[in-house]
Amino acid sequence: MSRTTTPEELASLVARTRAFVREHVLPIEDAADGDIEAAGGEDVRLQLQKLARDAGILAPHAPVEYGGHGLNMVDRAAVFEEAGYGLFGPLATHIAAPDEGNIHMLDHIASAAQKEKYLRPLATGEVRSAFAMTEPAPGAGADPSMLTTRATKVDGGWVIDGRKWFITGADGAGFFITMARTSGEPGSAGGATMFLMPADTEGIEVVRHVGTVDKAMLGGHCEVAFTGAFVPDDDVLGGVDEGFRYAQVRLGPARMTHVMRWTGAVRRAHEIAVNHVAHREAFGSRLADLGLMQQLIADNEIDLAATRALLLEACRVLDDGGRAAKETSIAKTFAAEALHRVADRAQQMCGGLGVSTELPVARIAREVRPFRIYDGPSEVHRWSIAKRAVKAITSEFAAGADGAGA
Amino acid sequence: MSRTTTPEELASLVARTRAFVREHVLPIEDAADGDIEAAGGEDVRLQLQKLARDAGILAPHAPVEYGGHGLNMVDRAAVFEEAGYGLFGPLATHIAAPDEGNIHMLDHIASAAQKEKYLRPLATGEVRSAFAMTEPAPGAGADPSMLTTRATKVDGGWVIDGRKWFITGADGAGFFITMARTSGEPGSAGGATMFLMPADTEGIEVVRHVGTVDKAMLGGHCEVAFTGAFVPDDDVLGGVDEGFRYAQVRLGPARMTHVMRWTGAVRRAHEIAVNHVAHREAFGSRLADLGLMQQLIADNEIDLAATRALLLEACRVLDDGGRAAKETSIAKTFAAEALHRVADRAQQMCGGLGVSTELPVARIAREVRPFRIYDGPSEVHRWSIAKRAVKAITSEFAAGADGAGA
Amino acid sequence: MSRTTTPEELASLVARTRAFVREHVLPIEDAADGDIEAAGGEDVRLQLQKLARDAGILAPHAPVEYGGHGLNMVDRAAVFEEAGYGLFGPLATHIAAPDEGNIHMLDHIASAAQKEKYLRPLATGEVRSAFAMTEPAPGAGADPSMLTTRATKVDGGWVIDGRKWFITGADGAGFFITMARTSGEPGSAGGATMFLMPADTEGIEVVRHVGTVDKAMLGGHCEVAFTGAFVPDDDVLGGVDEGFRYAQVRLGPARMTHVMRWTGAVRRAHEIAVNHVAHREAFGSRLADLGLMQQLIADNEIDLAATRALLLEACRVLDDGGRAAKETSIAKTFAAEALHRVADRAQQMCGGLGVSTELPVARIAREVRPFRIYDGPSEVHRWSIAKRAVKAITSEFAAGADGAGA
Amino acid sequence: MSRTTTPEELASLVARTRAFVREHVLPIEDAADGDIEAAGGEDVRLQLQKLARDAGILAPHAPVEYGGHGLNMVDRAAVFEEAGYGLFGPLATHIAAPDEGNIHMLDHIASAAQKEKYLRPLATGEVRSAFAMTEPAPGAGADPSMLTTRATKVDGGWVIDGRKWFITGADGAGFFITMARTSGEPGSAGGATMFLMPADTEGIEVVRHVGTVDKAMLGGHCEVAFTGAFVPDDDVLGGVDEGFRYAQVRLGPARMTHVMRWTGAVRRAHEIAVNHVAHREAFGSRLADLGLMQQLIADNEIDLAATRALLLEACRVLDDGGRAAKETSIAKTFAAEALHRVADRAQQMCGGLGVSTELPVARIAREVRPFRIYDGPSEVHRWSIAKRAVKAITSEFAAGADGAGA
Repeated sequence: MSRTTTPEELASLVARTRAFVREHVLPIEDAADGDIEAAGGEDVRLQLQKLARDAGILAPHAPVEYGGHGLNMVDRAAVFEEAGYGLFGPLATHIAAPDEGNIHMLDHIASAAQKEKYLRPLATGEVRSAFAMTEPAPGAGADPSMLTTRATKVDGGWVIDGRKWFITGADGAGFFITMARTSGEPGSAGGATMFLMPADTEGIEVVRHVGTVDKAMLGGHCEVAFTGAFVPDDDVLGGVDEGFRYAQVRLGPARMTHVMRWTGAVRRAHEIAVNHVAHREAFGSRLADLGLMQQLIADNEIDLAATRALLLEACRVLDDGGRAAKETSIAKTFAAEALHRVADRAQQMCGGLGVSTELPVARIAREVRPFRIYDGPSEVHRWSIAKRAVKAITSEFAAGADGAGA
Repeated sequence: MSRTTTPEELASLVARTRAFVREHVLPIEDAADGDIEAAGGEDVRLQLQKLARDAGILAPHAPVEYGGHGLNMVDRAAVFEEAGYGLFGPLATHIAAPDEGNIHMLDHIASAAQKEKYLRPLATGEVRSAFAMTEPAPGAGADPSMLTTRATKVDGGWVIDGRKWFITGADGAGFFITMARTSGEPGSAGGATMFLMPADTEGIEVVRHVGTVDKAMLGGHCEVAFTGAFVPDDDVLGGVDEGFRYAQVRLGPARMTHVMRWTGAVRRAHEIAVNHVAHREAFGSRLADLGLMQQLIADNEIDLAATRALLLEACRVLDDGGRAAKETSIAKTFAAEALHRVADRAQQMCGGLGVSTELPVARIAREVRPFRIYDGPSEVHRWSIAKRAVKAITSEFAAGADGAGA
Repeated sequence: MSRTTTPEELASLVARTRAFVREHVLPIEDAADGDIEAAGGEDVRLQLQKLARDAGILAPHAPVEYGGHGLNMVDRAAVFEEAGYGLFGPLATHIAAPDEGNIHMLDHIASAAQKEKYLRPLATGEVRSAFAMTEPAPGAGADPSMLTTRATKVDGGWVIDGRKWFITGADGAGFFITMARTSGEPGSAGGATMFLMPADTEGIEVVRHVGTVDKAMLGGHCEVAFTGAFVPDDDVLGGVDEGFRYAQVRLGPARMTHVMRWTGAVRRAHEIAVNHVAHREAFGSRLADLGLMQQLIADNEIDLAATRALLLEACRVLDDGGRAAKETSIAKTFAAEALHRVADRAQQMCGGLGVSTELPVARIAREVRPFRIYDGPSEVHRWSIAKRAVKAITSEFAAGADGAGA
Repeated sequence: MSRTTTPEELASLVARTRAFVREHVLPIEDAADGDIEAAGGEDVRLQLQKLARDAGILAPHAPVEYGGHGLNMVDRAAVFEEAGYGLFGPLATHIAAPDEGNIHMLDHIASAAQKEKYLRPLATGEVRSAFAMTEPAPGAGADPSMLTTRATKVDGGWVIDGRKWFITGADGAGFFITMARTSGEPGSAGGATMFLMPADTEGIEVVRHVGTVDKAMLGGHCEVAFTGAFVPDDDVLGGVDEGFRYAQVRLGPARMTHVMRWTGAVRRAHEIAVNHVAHREAFGSRLADLGLMQQLIADNEIDLAATRALLLEACRVLDDGGRAAKETSIAKTFAAEALHRVADRAQQMCGGLGVSTELPVARIAREVRPFRIYDGPSEVHRWSIAKRAVKAITSEFAAGADGAGA
């Protein structure tokens, strides 16, 4: 991905995004305590995206031919963090999951015709999309190889049968990218394929919203049933049986943009908490000058700095064309845990207000909690990080790298 | 407090409480996702307390003359944990905050007339009560000495003026125990007094519910205005200017009963999570057999065991007549943090379900979060724990305890 | 184990042990920076044990018939902590590992003749002993079932062949209690037996001291070779093939006495650090009044209190005749980690002096480090704690304990 | 600092340093368990530095005119980590503290004559140096403003009186850079000056080595007395009363090169531990495949990655000419704690061997421990990180950055 943005253009984009979020997004978010449905749902999206389009900050990651800025990953980091400062900021600037990752993936994999049919309306904000991967037990969850949704070859296309859940944004999406098994059996990695499916395809039903602790994602986290739903051959995304490989293409950058957005949100919690303790007194001192508060503040600064540093390292690898499987896994795992700690400490700094709706802090803590689970629980990431490390280090030692023996 | 309960009686009380919670409480809680108002509010309280009274398990800590079992602190630990297994269990068995602590304090401090007027209806569940202490900044929060609500002496009594918030259970309470300044100025410790005030006293207004992350406390956490509210001399609770001292009497046991109840709630989250991972497979193994899950499980077991052990040590000191300021402060601080960790790990074990309403786990995590702030934030407890330790250890060293020097 | 000690006797024993350690032990330890060999080795043991015997505080846990006080586990906790305040205190009062655990086990398992031959000289401090269990890889380490040392039946006795290491106190021990395989193969649990072996038995060779970070254990941690070493039938300890079961008998109490001793040592580090920060100034304040120091102090107090509370809970179960496998495993795991944290924070409080030999703090941190590995690494304990929890909780749920499902 | 190194040159330097450490340094270090005096002290330095000079890898950070490579900070990171893989590697390649930081500072501040007299022999490895700043209480420690050593103006120069300790490398140093008060009183920041003093100056006495837990620093950590020691005006380093400002110049880069070196050392501990668990079995499995080991491995990988990421971010700021006070403070604090955790987990992975001299792991843990204290204890860094954050965030909020209020 070639970087064509100048530092000045980037700085301007950051500044305008920042101002936009403060002017247009925070008031709506604060009034609705971060509940997108309570705030107005799809209407709010259309209203905010129109304003963002007018401000020239819509879809900064999208290809220039679709009206975006074509930012590379490193540049996205600064812009997405500013957008994420407001919980509805990503929606407003059209960089929210899952659309953002879907745009990224379609840009890399879709055919020219598919781009025209699916990517253009998505990139311009005309429609929303959903990525239908996760299934109820015993299907695909943290272990994608357990995929049970089936695609059966028929004349001229495929028929999809299966059940998905925790499908973010499903309610109201214009189309689904659906992962289904085209060969092999649950438990075997091989044989998944991605299908592009308009939401009004016969046989697709959004069954219900799964209740979750987070409230800021438009379209919810839904259970979706696929019952004999037909996909013409032209809407197979990429090659048959190549689905898991494409999911990896989507995964690395998607992990990192999650980190960018959540860093912004959690930074707001931190800043509000610091400002809070700087204006309160107890025990004869400004709260911010008490050492036990300083510990919380410093730990937050360290966690935020380490999150950003790991993020940027991974983004550089991605921008250089690497898959960055290790780097993005480490950065995602650290960030999800660190950002949760930051939000939690911010709550603690605010005392009773930190567990109330009087400040945005509790809300932000609530929203960021699932990040340690979505896109791979920390435990699964640690498992793969460890396996990769054992393999690399034993190879090196077998080649005689260190004489200290085992 | 003399212990008259036999081990057999205690075991029976524990078992009956346990069965009661599972039969009568959990279904209501689970249907309403732990939101007491959604479950029916005051009606549910009356219905459940009637059932508990019939089952002979109501108010196990209350004096026998009011229908309770007069349990000492150690015995309460086992019973309250079972009651707390359901979020509405404490309400059902009438051991919920703030009533439980108010019963305890009135039993120790109230005059005979006050006991008849206030304690009896409270202990029997006829009415609820509230403890009006915390104030908005710059008033009494973590630092009680900043108390600003004033009591002015008038003929035959006192007139109260001030504003309180985060007053648990205020909406619907039959009476308030109100802490007001009777001498000194905000910032000086001395000079607070407790007043018994029927809720229908002219000049008391429950202004609003402060929105909080927890939803299981009947009567909410309210803002309450006191405007020229009159208290006759007979309703002064204990001595004038003795309020802070009495608050300490209430504080130690109240901290410990919080720990008991939350241990029960969080144990449920842990048990459900363990049962969950014992029935799911991924990566070719039962989740419960994966080492990264075993880490979470073992850490939870250790945290629960340490919480109970510290709790019991503190209860023994209280039962022996000690104030246990150090022991209860340490036990509360450790427990609030440990129980939060346990609930958080339980969420992690359940994956996506752990941040959903499909299981009670996310709800329990939400409810227990404020415990690290209510009844003294961990930071304030650490501050006092450290000061006490410095004083004790330097005294000992000054007396020549160790020759290693400073 | 019947408790015959009165509270007054116990208090006196505690006080005398405390005074003894300060008067006789600390000066020797401080002069030698905790290195027992540098301090004089066996000579120091004899000198200090004579003083302890004269002071009536030798072997407080040993049976009364051998000159001890026969303390139960709960009472030991207080006395052993005081002895442990000095790193050589356990040696001086004859409660050091492995003798202390060996006395305990011989008292429970040995025949009358064995008691006369081995227990009496051990209990009175005439000789030291060693427990020969751990083997180099691929033998018995954290996983005892991998035991490779063999005992072969011959006429009138057994012949032992194998290699042990990390055998504490082996150099200079009067006898060994050796664990050897009498049936089954490495990897199978069954079939170990304990043998009593005088150190001068032909075929026993103390090969070398394994260098370790800790320096306070008399007799070191040695590698010991057994080559055709003969044990008469009379010196088989308990039943053949019962070795693992007996090891469990020794294990629970031995774990807890480790905790007692290390709590004393680490308490000294904490107290010296607190006294240090109470007498230093920086940034215009007494160090002890800086919040970041208060955090360290409070966390230490909490960790010490939780360690003691878990210890006492486990001791109560042991005193009641229980095996306390779960309780001692949890208490050991928590304590080893908590005490390490306390010593580490004490170092941090002392700044540069905390990593020097100017104060005992770095030395105590060094000595306590292996406790997280010896007697079962934390990781192995967590593994068994988790397995036990999964089994218990799933059984309970299978019996219908909670309706929330998996 | 202009970067003139090509990627190929850098890669070669890294590879040659890596090979050199494995071939020449590790055998000496392993034989002496990391004790530089036991390994041969100054003789070993001369021998290893000759080899490094011949290999073209000596002093890679030193200016090219003195035979170095003039690496910028980012490039140093990769080379210094490789050098640090061996505890004596920094000494061998002449990048050890305090020489490395002194070279850096002299290059920036010294006059041409001073460079010829002091920097050239230092940069080429002819002599070693020491930085005499820290004093015993109540002098300059974590709080430099408490500086008590005095420089008194006399004709033609200054006379220095005072006492320093923990002066690394003092024993055998060719010269000292001594910080002394030239105005103001202890407790006031202003008024320190740096003096260049040949070690044979009359009135300088290396009193003793302070015993410390680390053993790998040549010349020890010494107590040094300055008694009427004369410094001619020509040997004042930079301007009078500018000492604290210069110390800051030295400080940022010196913090970061510490991180680089320790990352290398601790990486070795991690790699040896991973290799160890990959070749051992217990409980029927390769240790490396047990989840509780995977947790340790993954946490180590994450900590190492975050350390490097924060380091590189700070180095970029320094290379761009920034002071990077915030970035280096955060990176140092995180790194010192993270690297300690990594070494500690490596010990845990190795079981008994991890607290022995059989593997280098315990030794590395011992050496890295003081890093959390040297160059500013974590507590002091947190204090300054928090103060900086409060100032920055409150300014931003005062300017209307967020509408959520305090």
